[in-house]
Amino acid sequence: MSRLHAETAEQPAAVARLLERVVPNLSTLRRELWRDDVSSIVLVARGSSDNAARYAQYLFGIEHRLPVALATPSLGSIYGVEPDFRQALVVAVSQSGQSPDVVGVLDAARRQGRPALAITNDPDSPLADAATCVLELGAGPERSVAATKTYTTSLTALALVAVAGLDTGRRRERLADLGLLPDVLETVLGLDTGAAAAGLSEVEHLLVAGRGLNYATAFEAALKIRELSGVVAEAFSPPDLLHGPIGAVSSGAAALLIAPSEPSLAGVAALAAPLRERGARLAVLSADASLLAVADVPLRLPREPADWLTPVTTIVPAQRLASALAADRGRDLDAPEGLTKVTRTR
Amino acid sequence: MSRLHAETAEQPAAVARLLERVVPNLSTLRRELWRDDVSSIVLVARGSSDNAARYAQYLFGIEHRLPVALATPSLGSIYGVEPDFRQALVVAVSQSGQSPDVVGVLDAARRQGRPALAITNDPDSPLADAATCVLELGAGPERSVAATKTYTTSLTALALVAVAGLDTGRRRERLADLGLLPDVLETVLGLDTGAAAAGLSEVEHLLVAGRGLNYATAFEAALKIRELSGVVAEAFSPPDLLHGPIGAVSSGAAALLIAPSEPSLAGVAALAAPLRERGARLAVLSADASLLAVADVPLRLPREPADWLTPVTTIVPAQRLASALAADRGRDLDAPEGLTKVTRTR
Repeated sequence: MSRLHAETAEQPAAVARLLERVVPNLSTLRRELWRDDVSSIVLVARGSSDNAARYAQYLFGIEHRLPVALATPSLGSIYGVEPDFRQALVVAVSQSGQSPDVVGVLDAARRQGRPALAITNDPDSPLADAATCVLELGAGPERSVAATKTYTTSLTALALVAVAGLDTGRRRERLADLGLLPDVLETVLGLDTGAAAAGLSEVEHLLVAGRGLNYATAFEAALKIRELSGVVAEAFSPPDLLHGPIGAVSSGAAALLIAPSEPSLAGVAALAAPLRERGARLAVLSADASLLAVADVPLRLPREPADWLTPVTTIVPAQRLASALAADRGRDLDAPEGLTKVTRTR
Repeated sequence: MSRLHAETAEQPAAVARLLERVVPNLSTLRRELWRDDVSSIVLVARGSSDNAARYAQYLFGIEHRLPVALATPSLGSIYGVEPDFRQALVVAVSQSGQSPDVVGVLDAARRQGRPALAITNDPDSPLADAATCVLELGAGPERSVAATKTYTTSLTALALVAVAGLDTGRRRERLADLGLLPDVLETVLGLDTGAAAAGLSEVEHLLVAGRGLNYATAFEAALKIRELSGVVAEAFSPPDLLHGPIGAVSSGAAALLIAPSEPSLAGVAALAAPLRERGARLAVLSADASLLAVADVPLRLPREPADWLTPVTTIVPAQRLASALAADRGRDLDAPEGLTKVTRTR
């Protein structure tokens, strides 16, 4: 078995361990991060972690109603500008904790006296050193180049940060939702993606559409498919797809709709008709029977968590689809061509 | 002549008119927008205007050191959440001013008593109605589906907003830079892109790389090329390209580097070697002789504005390259297949 398959399968246990360790300490997170003067949130990350940050952008927006900025670390590294983080909670996400530009942003936040959280799989990393508060993923070593369990644990960690800042009643509800997550992940892991991979075997260009909370899944699914299989996969929200790129869709193109049972479903489902009219092959990841019925390649979600947690589980079939596409193409799953695990961007 | 060519050629005059009208009234913009309690900036836009907002994300970050968030309008339209904009300056950009989700964000900001600016080509639009302050582009009717003069005037308008908030000395310097812009645009319009289009005639997939202020140009160039020519063009920053998609680059691929003379140049230029090693055909838009020397398809910028204004001029050769690629492929320049001018996303 490849490391990638082993690490993908470890996700329910990794998420369960994270919840067991962090849930009893939510009040510490609350005290250290959700200070009364926080009026905006800044997220800083690269690669898969940046896709996790996209989830947080929606989740913090929904749960806390605050403006959420995805930081542009090159402001510091190429323009020499240190942002003024007054009023901000700054959250960095990086499995390795090594990228100097990401570390630089968190370092600036701490020096300015702001709450500066590092979410990382390496508590001895430079990122953890730069933080005022560290949330360790505890996913265990991830040796495959493609991030899997560090992605789903990063989403879960961000969910825990959001929940820590809620009032007691809502916190209790959300914790009940979180408690079910490992079981749902286990069930979703059982979904067979082999037929879907076969149905997409000729595809060289794949549009991946998701919206709202699951915009993150569209990006992470596209990245996974691309880095593992070499298929040119691109993420779009429905409005952005309709604003331009749909013009380049013609027969021979293919699209994957990320359409779990959450409020973004209708907007994503509305893409099915225009995409089919233009001759695109349609793959659908959903539990919605009517949407699955129009798919050329249906991927039926066997079970779903609470709607706000759907991104943690929708990525799992996408990871498995990516590795199935890669295996079909004879690619090395653990060391995709041209990539390295730790990228030290400045 | 196509409308697209005519509108592309109108850009120097459109920018000149905008400067003439707004520069004498900068103190009004300053008073209405840059209130003392502004500690973050929220930008809201779609499509080409969203690419203009990417420029502002860096420019406001550099000039004002404030966290800048690109809003997620679907928070309101699909999750029914109204963000709390305390401490924020909210800026919406839309040539038509019609998109209900963009209008919704600005409307919320105004109702919350926050400064809410509409940058639009239609002062009678719903977006202008929702604003506390309107900056009219005055670009004249744009009938081609692909935005050109409304994009460069939007960048200029955002530059004026940034400058309005500066102290007197820096404001004077920046205004001198702005004054040269129409002349530089006129010179850059003279750059012949025909040979470059011929050099990319076989290309079906193009990576467009830009960073920092010119990350916006990478996105807008990719969008223009895609919507006009049908070539699958995708924008990346160098770190993001190295974090994953470079794995899918092989011989037959092509890349366009956006590399004007500003601090992002070195990071973009550093992509040339790894892209060439992997066999990609290299197009380079730059004034840097050594980088142009390694290009298969050089596009030499004949003149450049001050570094902070380079995105206003780098997009022009990219617009002309996109239309040349489209003309070579026999596409309708004014009504690209599958697109409409005004998209009313919710």
